[in-house]
Formats: sequence, C-alpha cells, structure tokens
Amino acid sequence: MNVSIIAIGDELLIGQVTDTNSGDLARAMEPCGWSVSRVITVHDDAREISEAVRRELDRSEIVLTTGGLGPTKDDITKGVLLDIFGGTLVNRPDVLEHVNRIMAERGVEMNELTATQAMVPSSCEVIPNDLGTAPVMWFSRDDGHVLVSMPGVPFETRHAFTKHVLPKLRATFPPAEFIEHRCVITAGLSESAIAQRLDSWEKGLPVGFHLAYLPQRGLVRLRLDASGSDESKLHSEANRLHSELVELLPDVAVAKADLTPAQILVEMLKERNLTIATAESCTGGTIASLITSVAGCSQVMKGGVVAYSNEVKTNVLGVAESTLAEHGAVSHATVSEMLRGAMRITGAETAIATSGIAGPGGAVPGKPVGTVVIGIALPGRELVVTHHFPGSRQAVVERASATAILGLIKELRK
Amino acid sequence: MNVSIIAIGDELLIGQVTDTNSGDLARAMEPCGWSVSRVITVHDDAREISEAVRRELDRSEIVLTTGGLGPTKDDITKGVLLDIFGGTLVNRPDVLEHVNRIMAERGVEMNELTATQAMVPSSCEVIPNDLGTAPVMWFSRDDGHVLVSMPGVPFETRHAFTKHVLPKLRATFPPAEFIEHRCVITAGLSESAIAQRLDSWEKGLPVGFHLAYLPQRGLVRLRLDASGSDESKLHSEANRLHSELVELLPDVAVAKADLTPAQILVEMLKERNLTIATAESCTGGTIASLITSVAGCSQVMKGGVVAYSNEVKTNVLGVAESTLAEHGAVSHATVSEMLRGAMRITGAETAIATSGIAGPGGAVPGKPVGTVVIGIALPGRELVVTHHFPGSRQAVVERASATAILGLIKELRK
Repeated sequence: MNVSIIAIGDELLIGQVTDTNSGDLARAMEPCGWSVSRVITVHDDAREISEAVRRELDRSEIVLTTGGLGPTKDDITKGVLLDIFGGTLVNRPDVLEHVNRIMAERGVEMNELTATQAMVPSSCEVIPNDLGTAPVMWFSRDDGHVLVSMPGVPFETRHAFTKHVLPKLRATFPPAEFIEHRCVITAGLSESAIAQRLDSWEKGLPVGFHLAYLPQRGLVRLRLDASGSDESKLHSEANRLHSELVELLPDVAVAKADLTPAQILVEMLKERNLTIATAESCTGGTIASLITSVAGCSQVMKGGVVAYSNEVKTNVLGVAESTLAEHGAVSHATVSEMLRGAMRITGAETAIATSGIAGPGGAVPGKPVGTVVIGIALPGRELVVTHHFPGSRQAVVERASATAILGLIKELRK
Repeated sequence: MNVSIIAIGDELLIGQVTDTNSGDLARAMEPCGWSVSRVITVHDDAREISEAVRRELDRSEIVLTTGGLGPTKDDITKGVLLDIFGGTLVNRPDVLEHVNRIMAERGVEMNELTATQAMVPSSCEVIPNDLGTAPVMWFSRDDGHVLVSMPGVPFETRHAFTKHVLPKLRATFPPAEFIEHRCVITAGLSESAIAQRLDSWEKGLPVGFHLAYLPQRGLVRLRLDASGSDESKLHSEANRLHSELVELLPDVAVAKADLTPAQILVEMLKERNLTIATAESCTGGTIASLITSVAGCSQVMKGGVVAYSNEVKTNVLGVAESTLAEHGAVSHATVSEMLRGAMRITGAETAIATSGIAGPGGAVPGKPVGTVVIGIALPGRELVVTHHFPGSRQAVVERASATAILGLIKELRK
C-alpha cells in the first residue's frame, strides 16, 4: 500500500511557509498501518503538478494533494485535476451554500471570485471542508487508485482529513498490513555510544522490526519501527521489544514514549509533586510557552515572568538594583536573584531563569551575542551556568530554552 | 537553472520531524536568482534515494540532499552516493581530526562508530561542516551537474550551506537570471475582494511579474514575484510595481515588507513611541515569545507575566480575589484587571492579556474548550472580547495569540 503526498505552492518552495500538512497527514494515517512513501513539493505550475500527479498515481494507491485550491489566479490545481480526470466544471449549490455560510461566519463579504469555489469537476466527489471554503475533492481512477485534493490551510486540512477523508479511505482500502512505532528518549550518551551498546540486541531484531536513531540537542530519540500482518501479534511483540530496549538503557532513558523535553519535565514534576515557575529575559516567554504547551501542565506550572526590561527584573522579580549595577543583567548574580524572585512570587518549588544576549545586537565586551546565563533551582539546590550558543537570534533562544529544560530534567533525575 | 532538494529520513515521512531545511536553503539561495524547482522527501531506503538522486540529477544542475549522514545503521546516504558517483571509501585524517574536536567540545567520548564519519567517497570533495561531525560532500557529474550532500541537523546545514556551499555554487554556476520578491501585508479584506480590486492592475503586469495571494488568519499576504536577466532593471521595476501595489491598498495595507504580525506590531509601537506588556494565562508566554522574537523589540517590550495559576493572577498582577470568585478566571472582569496589572507593574502604555480554556480538559458549563477572552489596552482605550477557537490545544493557543496581536495592530491603526 503506497501513499504519496503532493504539496503544491510556490510559498513552500521559496521558504516562505513550512509544509506542516504532510507530517499531520502522516501521523493521522499511522494507526491504519499506512505510511507515506514520498512527499513531492511542487510549484503552482500546471505542467509540474500534472506530471507529479500522473507519476504518483501510477506508483501509489492513494495520492493526497494539499494546496493550490484558493479562488485566485495563482491557484490552478482544480484545472489540472479536471484535465487529468475529465468531466466538466459544474456549479454545486450545496457547496455554494456552505461557502456563503463560512464567509458569513468570518464576517467577510461574499463575492464572485469566492463563489467560484462552488464550481467543481463533475468527475469528483465533494468531501466537506467544514472549516474553509475550498471543497475537498475525491477522484477515483479506473485502476482503483484514489486522489484526494485538499486545501493548503493546515487547520482546515487536518480537520477534513481526520473527520471525513480518512474514514472513507479506510472503507475503500481495508488495511492489510499494520505499522507500529515505539519510542525511548535518552540523555547523556551519544548516538554511536548507544548504538554500540545495543549492537547485538539490534542484530537480533525479528523481521519487520527496525531501530532508528534520532539525535537532537542533548537527547537521542530511539524509534522502534515494526510492521506485520497480524495486528495483535505485532502489538505484543512491539511492547516486548520496547520493554527490552528500556531495560538495556536504565541509566540514560528519560522517557518511554515520544515526548518532548517539556512533556518529560512536566511528567517528572508531577511524579515528584513539585511545581515550577519561570523567569525569562532573553528567552522572552519561550520556556513558559513550551511548558504550557503540555496538556495538564496546570498541575505543576504556577506561572512566570518575562523580565525583558531591567525595571521588570527589579519591580516584579525583586532583583536588587545594586546587583544589576554591579554585575549587569547577564550575570550569575542577577539570574540567581531572578530564580529566587520567581519562586517567591509564585510559590513554586522549582524554577528556571535565563538572561542573555540573543542578538543580533546587544553584545558587550566579554559577553558576545549568544551568551546566555541559565539558572535552575530545585529544593536544596541551585545551579547557574553561562553558555555560549552559536547561530541566529531564534537559534540562540531555542537552544537556551532546550538547554534550560534539559538541565532541570537532569537535576531532577539525580 | 534548476535546483532540486532531496530531503532524506523516515522521521520526515512519519511526521515526527518537520523539514525546515528545504525552506532555509531556498531562502539562502534567493539572492542568487535561484529557485527550488522541487523538493522530494524520501525514506532512508537505498532504492528510493538512488532513484530520486538519479532522476533529479538529470533534471537539475544543482541537487542538494539533506539527512541520512549519521554514523548509525539507519543512515545510508553515503553508501548510495558512493554507488552512484563511484570511487572507494577513503579515510580522511583531516575529517577525523575535526570529528575528534567536535566530540571533545560536546564533552562526549569518541568511539569507533563516530570515527566512521571520517570515511568519505574518493569521488567527492569534502566541504567543512563546522558545527557537526558528518562531512558535507560535493560531487560533480561529467555533465557538470553537482550534488551536495548535507546533514539533516538544521543549524549545521544552515551554517555550512551559507558559509561554504553557496559561495562555491555561485563560483561554479554564475547566476544568469535574477529573482526578486516584494511583499504587502493586508488586513480587513478577503483574498477575493483584494483580487477584484487589483484585477486590472494584475492583468497589466509586465512579463516576468506575477502576484501571489497568501491568506493567513486575519491577514492576506501579497507576494509580487519578478524574474529577469537585467538585475538593475528588474530591481527598479519591482520597486515601482511594489509602490503601485501599496498605493492601491491604502486602507488595508499594514506592512510593505514580509513581516510577521509581531514584527508589524513592534514597528508600529516604535513609530508611536509606545511600550507594551503582556499578561497571559492560556497562551502561556506565546505572545511574549512572539514579540521578543523580533530583533530590537527591547525598545518597546517591557515584559510580561505568565499568570497560569490564580495565585499569580492575584499576587503578581493584582487581580482581586473577589473578581476571580465572582466571575471566574476566564472572564472580561479578570482579563480587564490583568491588563491594568500588567501595565502597572511594568510601566508599559499598552498591554495584551489572555485567559481561556486551551483544552483538551478544563471546560466548564458555558465555557467550552476554545473559549478565550482577549484583552487589549492602549492609551485611553480598552477592548475585551470573548472568542471561540476550534481545534487542538496548540491551535487554540496559536489562534488566540495571533488574534490578540492583530487586534492591537488594528486598534493602533485607528
């Protein structure tokens, strides 16, 4: 069973928009045992789209396209599909009614161009796009291969695919082979040191099982991929091997599922019955937003302060003016007072604090761009370390945030 | 001049990792007048990689691959390239020395597997990967077509491409045609209403010019794409048409460049000499992190409070306990007090505040998941509105954050 995705849009190829649809679709299909064979990203160009569609329809039973369905001149996917699958453009009163309703909900005026969204090829079946105006179109070829054309707007496509397209695909192609994944996240050993330790275990993996190594800043994710035709056997075999893998890595496994560092941290705090607060200068709220992205974090997350200006460091967090004057904002002394201030005003037992120079401006002698002082506090312990991160403003903020969260995870494991 | 990118890695196709490399490479190449024709994302599968490489090398003068270069079993790109370009694997002492240095910097032990990174095909030229252990490899085919293989780790590839690969590509293929983009961001009119207004102007665009419509939550980005062989003529023509476009949209153009809503907001605050503070409950620091992602924001951003728990709302922001008891945390009254608290403790003249239920849990009667109260304050004016956003926890936070920032932009324009 092959699935191809064709992502359509100039904005994807010039790097203006990142394609998140393909990943969303892949994750949604996984429980059906389907995996995506390839993703082709092409321009809003009739020849390119047509060539990719024909080629992928020959190779794959299911072809999903995203994008190129807007009402304006640069969106040409519908015309290309009409050309490939035949038929004529017909006006669908039911689609027009839906488009009218969506436009009314958005409080924007209906006009002729938007009304053309209701014109669809007679060769397709219309699938509802509950959250948008571009109809989702289902085409079948004589050989049974299916193409589903969806919009490029991520939340529209995610919703329509999960609610309408996937159930219809399952009914059309009852899954014959199943795929499962298991994850172990490790910290403290390099990719190759882990590989050496797992060498003989990995060589003994049964047919259909495979281990992938995914190193990330400070972590290595291990993903056990499994495929087979017997769903329940596959499931229990994957569970057994997953347990073995965890047992082989007692000193470095920080999570047994595919969790983000923030999710791991929230789990650890829950287990230990601890709460957390943040005091962020250069990371500007990123650490708080990572922690609060975890559902159920309210059990452990008290809150935080984005202490961007020195006034806020002083007035809200209680950093002494003399500390700022003597040591500067980017210093161990300031970060240490930020930690204590965050815990005092929120009542949390643990805290993360950052102060640094994310760039591109702001460097001072001895403190180049990328200098970030990271503080971590937990009952009876405080750790403040100066780091130097390379890269852009965004990279410095991302790495400082990840380093801070991993730092607290490591301290909590001790 | 055709450029193809092949993104290699199972993690990309199962939706575990989002490919940001392709966009980074595209943006880096843009000033040279090169655009990416296609991106092909394939599995860590020798046949798939080989087929994609051969096919794209026939179509494109430049083929860039990312990923599949780690030292472990699942990374097989090097072997495939050896097979395609010939030669033998040779041990490069200079690469080994570099790998040793990187491992020492990272404080992880060197081992045999990592040492295999220094084995490279004799048919390639090694390009430094200053920030990582996998060597960047440059292969040339007899017909002059070039393949450059880079790692999948984004910051390694971004650095190596900009610093080493791109200059060498420019020297090998001196640009003959140039590409430029101009952007206008609009708020308040739908994609199709703008298209109707611009209809005759768009039809009169000279050859090589093209207008693309990119709708986003609450905004429509217009991108004017231009290509031509005369660099200075293209540049002035693009500037002229860009000005015309701005003049045709005086009531709705909020920015003349490709700025994020946060960048537009920071610019507007600078122009008006105003500062800003945030008080976030359900958005958990996301609005602050969006604002602080803008370089130079320290001129306007005082700071913020992530008031996740009611204690923080009361103790730090000064929301009255009676207000929380009477109206609840997700209420106009609470958000209004959060706004005033944020301005009081930071000294800012404008503020954004949010309180809501991002889900999946937390719904109460009359306040379903997705309910978010958004408050905006600016001199002499305060606006508090209850919204209902569909979708996941992440979608609710993203949409609430975007809506809040756009809301303040709209109020500042009045």
